[in-house]
Amino acid sequence: MIEVGIYGASGYMGGEALRVLNEHPEVKVVWSTSRSGKPLEYFHRNMYGSNIPLIKPEEASSCDAVFIGLPTGNAMNMAQDLVKIGTKIIDLGADFRLKDREVWERVYGKTHSCWDLVDEAAYGIPELHRESIRKARIIANPGCFSSASILGLAPLLIEDMIDEEKIVIDGLSGTAGAGTELDITMHHPEIGNNLVPYNVVDHRHTYEIEQELGLLARKSVTVNFTPAYVPITRGILAICHCFPKEEVSRSELLERYKLFYRDEYFVKVFDMPKEADATWQYLPYPWVAAVSGTNFCHIGLDFDEKRNHLVVFSVLDSLGKGGSHAGIQNLNLLFNLEENTGLKRYGLHPY
Amino acid sequence: MIEVGIYGASGYMGGEALRVLNEHPEVKVVWSTSRSGKPLEYFHRNMYGSNIPLIKPEEASSCDAVFIGLPTGNAMNMAQDLVKIGTKIIDLGADFRLKDREVWERVYGKTHSCWDLVDEAAYGIPELHRESIRKARIIANPGCFSSASILGLAPLLIEDMIDEEKIVIDGLSGTAGAGTELDITMHHPEIGNNLVPYNVVDHRHTYEIEQELGLLARKSVTVNFTPAYVPITRGILAICHCFPKEEVSRSELLERYKLFYRDEYFVKVFDMPKEADATWQYLPYPWVAAVSGTNFCHIGLDFDEKRNHLVVFSVLDSLGKGGSHAGIQNLNLLFNLEENTGLKRYGLHPY
Amino acid sequence: MIEVGIYGASGYMGGEALRVLNEHPEVKVVWSTSRSGKPLEYFHRNMYGSNIPLIKPEEASSCDAVFIGLPTGNAMNMAQDLVKIGTKIIDLGADFRLKDREVWERVYGKTHSCWDLVDEAAYGIPELHRESIRKARIIANPGCFSSASILGLAPLLIEDMIDEEKIVIDGLSGTAGAGTELDITMHHPEIGNNLVPYNVVDHRHTYEIEQELGLLARKSVTVNFTPAYVPITRGILAICHCFPKEEVSRSELLERYKLFYRDEYFVKVFDMPKEADATWQYLPYPWVAAVSGTNFCHIGLDFDEKRNHLVVFSVLDSLGKGGSHAGIQNLNLLFNLEENTGLKRYGLHPY
Amino acid sequence: MIEVGIYGASGYMGGEALRVLNEHPEVKVVWSTSRSGKPLEYFHRNMYGSNIPLIKPEEASSCDAVFIGLPTGNAMNMAQDLVKIGTKIIDLGADFRLKDREVWERVYGKTHSCWDLVDEAAYGIPELHRESIRKARIIANPGCFSSASILGLAPLLIEDMIDEEKIVIDGLSGTAGAGTELDITMHHPEIGNNLVPYNVVDHRHTYEIEQELGLLARKSVTVNFTPAYVPITRGILAICHCFPKEEVSRSELLERYKLFYRDEYFVKVFDMPKEADATWQYLPYPWVAAVSGTNFCHIGLDFDEKRNHLVVFSVLDSLGKGGSHAGIQNLNLLFNLEENTGLKRYGLHPY
Repeated sequence: MIEVGIYGASGYMGGEALRVLNEHPEVKVVWSTSRSGKPLEYFHRNMYGSNIPLIKPEEASSCDAVFIGLPTGNAMNMAQDLVKIGTKIIDLGADFRLKDREVWERVYGKTHSCWDLVDEAAYGIPELHRESIRKARIIANPGCFSSASILGLAPLLIEDMIDEEKIVIDGLSGTAGAGTELDITMHHPEIGNNLVPYNVVDHRHTYEIEQELGLLARKSVTVNFTPAYVPITRGILAICHCFPKEEVSRSELLERYKLFYRDEYFVKVFDMPKEADATWQYLPYPWVAAVSGTNFCHIGLDFDEKRNHLVVFSVLDSLGKGGSHAGIQNLNLLFNLEENTGLKRYGLHPY
Repeated sequence: MIEVGIYGASGYMGGEALRVLNEHPEVKVVWSTSRSGKPLEYFHRNMYGSNIPLIKPEEASSCDAVFIGLPTGNAMNMAQDLVKIGTKIIDLGADFRLKDREVWERVYGKTHSCWDLVDEAAYGIPELHRESIRKARIIANPGCFSSASILGLAPLLIEDMIDEEKIVIDGLSGTAGAGTELDITMHHPEIGNNLVPYNVVDHRHTYEIEQELGLLARKSVTVNFTPAYVPITRGILAICHCFPKEEVSRSELLERYKLFYRDEYFVKVFDMPKEADATWQYLPYPWVAAVSGTNFCHIGLDFDEKRNHLVVFSVLDSLGKGGSHAGIQNLNLLFNLEENTGLKRYGLHPY
Repeated sequence: MIEVGIYGASGYMGGEALRVLNEHPEVKVVWSTSRSGKPLEYFHRNMYGSNIPLIKPEEASSCDAVFIGLPTGNAMNMAQDLVKIGTKIIDLGADFRLKDREVWERVYGKTHSCWDLVDEAAYGIPELHRESIRKARIIANPGCFSSASILGLAPLLIEDMIDEEKIVIDGLSGTAGAGTELDITMHHPEIGNNLVPYNVVDHRHTYEIEQELGLLARKSVTVNFTPAYVPITRGILAICHCFPKEEVSRSELLERYKLFYRDEYFVKVFDMPKEADATWQYLPYPWVAAVSGTNFCHIGLDFDEKRNHLVVFSVLDSLGKGGSHAGIQNLNLLFNLEENTGLKRYGLHPY
Repeated sequence: MIEVGIYGASGYMGGEALRVLNEHPEVKVVWSTSRSGKPLEYFHRNMYGSNIPLIKPEEASSCDAVFIGLPTGNAMNMAQDLVKIGTKIIDLGADFRLKDREVWERVYGKTHSCWDLVDEAAYGIPELHRESIRKARIIANPGCFSSASILGLAPLLIEDMIDEEKIVIDGLSGTAGAGTELDITMHHPEIGNNLVPYNVVDHRHTYEIEQELGLLARKSVTVNFTPAYVPITRGILAICHCFPKEEVSRSELLERYKLFYRDEYFVKVFDMPKEADATWQYLPYPWVAAVSGTNFCHIGLDFDEKRNHLVVFSVLDSLGKGGSHAGIQNLNLLFNLEENTGLKRYGLHPY
């Protein structure tokens, strides 16, 4: 059994890692931490009766791998020591995501304390970085909007099919994305029937998306990313707009996407016919509720031939394929397990 | 008192017109129709106890003005007779919105039965067509997404500030926009935690938006419009992306918008500082919940100077400023009343 | 014009009073207070552009009447001075609701500072206390659950029809009832798909309900009241269970209720047939969404003859007939206006 | 491997059985049926990419066990043949739940076609009927409200602790409980902010609850059950009110409940202290969101000593412990597997 520890198990990210790892057939969660001194069910009532203890971070013992579900800025201070004793790090925060130090320090408003380790960290999207993940000591698990956007646009940029200067992405997020901290925009009377754009210019995930899509495109890419909270709890819909360089068709694009992701278990290209059906409308685009609670990402698209405009829809769960579940997929790679071990279950319907 | 009749009072649009006109100080609703033979409260429980009768459409008597809340294709067959006897028509459907016959007939899949009246119909956005509305016999009340998008982008196009070929709009709609007809995408177990893109290419409202923005720009405008349902009941958020032709700043843009709408009672430019506040976050973009149930439209914006990308947020209620309330604003203009008569009340908070 | 001041306009109760009074034809709101120093739209974005100033409470001038939307314990310290200068008080809090000092001090954990004024305060349900309200100097506006429950059960207790020892009420509340203060149970990720029982034993409103129903019954009444939060923003459904002393029928009960409330504008007895309808189900019980944002209370009921069990459903909005709107109804009575002035508008549909 | 077939896989019940059995380590789903001729993902987008075929019911082959997720009245016509060939039946409908033929035929408005098999059917609550389930050929899987109510009240009735004539239960249900059929009360614009009481008198589940609690009490029990839909998708909260025969205390009751369910994996007695906590309120009653998507039932309670009134809260998922998951728990018993095989995973948080 792989022995895993979880830092920050009282948060949504850490709690979800704990929940799924708790049933992982090859993993034993040896400890989970919280500074609070409170029991687990205080934070996660879904785990009521599990009797899993929470320990203080300073009581953590060494283990094969750790998930770090702490606010950005913590992992970098722990990494050196962990790496030294051979512990694999899966950082659910942003400490190792950006490869440009100046950008990272500006965006996160901090001095990075172990930049030498950033270079070797693997960006945790297995569908694009599988080999580097297998060999890494540190996994930079991506931001939720980043995962959705990058998976949605990768096939286009890798083939230089779209205007890389005019990419527009609207990211609609459930409220779980805001974390456990109380805030007026998450106060139910305010958000219950509302749509709330936030961090509209220069959202931190923009830099990840530009970095990763730029690597695929082998040139600089500009992404105009706009997030908004919507009153669902879990899940993200990235609506990605782009302008193709040459004429294409919906069916051709779908074929390319299916080819690109043909060997992937978790990324499904949503190819359903556009004809409506009288009794149960057969909508041809992905629904975020279908992947909530899972490691799946569904991608659909459509193309307006008259206006030469392409829209790609990418849905995932910010705690699933956009967070902790993806971290477990990365863990499986790190330890040479089947990539989908412990992650196969389909989502709930209805959700 | 102005005598008004309402065709189609069992639907959401007609019902909302009835509700607001019922308290309008200068209007008497002389009849409301439904083919069903059912009482009003069967459709609108909010009106329980009002004892307002519903009559069959064929029992309708002549009056000063009618609201037509029927499916598109009905108003055109009624217009000739109504115009002849001097009744003003406020069509809440799409029969008179598009000025290009070929486009209309293709988009709506019907032969238009009175195209000669289309030309004289006024497009019902008072902020842009006030004078023609005052003199019209027929008001083509705009589509909900159209109102939000046109109001949001008008100040930019009228001054030729943006690339008119690369406009991208995501329209997020509450479920009231789908009307009363049952459909699996409106079935609560399906939509309750979901985000549902639909009619992604060539949505009918695109043509209204392109037509009206083209008139303002005095040239052809291309709009890439993508709608999605979100699990709120009322309200629309249009996220409008554009690429400015010259450098601008957020504050300059806000000044231009405020100048453009300076005399408008119902269109408010949302100019709040971007600095967060520790206890009650002061988010600088409009919230759809703030205008639900009203004739107000709130417009906010932000500009990414590094990426030369401008995003405009426009919120309104599809039955309010995007529907029946706007129809009443038009009625007020038609009969030389104060434009905001019967429409002044602010929305609910919380909504 | 009646000059009115509002203490605590930054909260939901005070803000709603301000919003409705702002359009009241016989009232001028002369000031509204907030300790924060922040502008009104910071708290209530629905009022954006109204330019209504907020002043500090110590800057308040004298006026004809004040609404007090402050936490319980404040009004009692202000009442003596206000009464002295002839200002009518409408207390939206609980300072004057209970007539038993020992009970009040235990339930609210405070020493009451002006108990002599409690006796003369009128309990603000006009349908039951119209005459004493007209003559009062202080109105104790009822708690939201209390209004719903008392209106729902009054016709039964006044005629001694039910076992007064075995009354069971479940009170389902929208989240607006929790106020503006941030709390984990109002954090959207927690409550968005949840049902949250709280304050299960000895909820403060129980004492109001027992007091008022006891007055009607002319004997002691025991109420077992259980509240729970549900993920709607506004509105309350009180499900009131009781055991009739004699055989009755649904139709007979409905007749009695209709007789009891026959002259009331705001309390509607929901008498719809129980037969289902194939296309649009004709449900015979009240819906909370139908009264949200209004001063209406809808009451419905059913009776299980086999089990001799009666259930009464009472719906209202905690900020409407269960709060600020009821306060305005009381204001109208205090100043000899038509009782429904400024309150007539029906609720939104859909809500 | 146990070979299982699923009748009615296009519905919510059948689809959930399929989803969970698909990952059950000891089960192979050999077929799933739908009359529609449509693919699985047409009904359940969560299963997109699973490539599980749907067959017509007449194509079903023999297997070890079948789940029947068809409308009530179907299973009885299939049972004889299935029993004859040794196939175990898990009926997710109501055909075998009631032991009194006259009651069943009145309540369901049908003549029962194989009443001789009803007697031998086991009522599928393992916590109460484990031994008869192990030996049964037919499992009558309980109604969702029934499971919640019976589990919530069993410890009281078995010890004759409460007045068995005055039991009041309010059952709040998510919309998944209404099934896939379109209906105005499930239309999002209607239910999105609403609370909808329905089938208020004589709900069918009442008879199951009375039957099962009567067996435990060894006397006739009267249950006054009132259901209402609330705008969550999954989950049920049963609020059960009763009047104890003798004085008890909350802590004593909790001890009795914990003793009663001490060996149960899926029924958890929620024993959390009542003291609030300043930063993260420690609410002592179960939350429905904590068990959504699982086979868990959480039970909490409180006692009002002053009013001698006891309230028990029981939460479960109508498709989980109140439906398909419980069916799988029963399957495990039928085939001598560990009772929690394939069912151990905790629910999502946030849900």
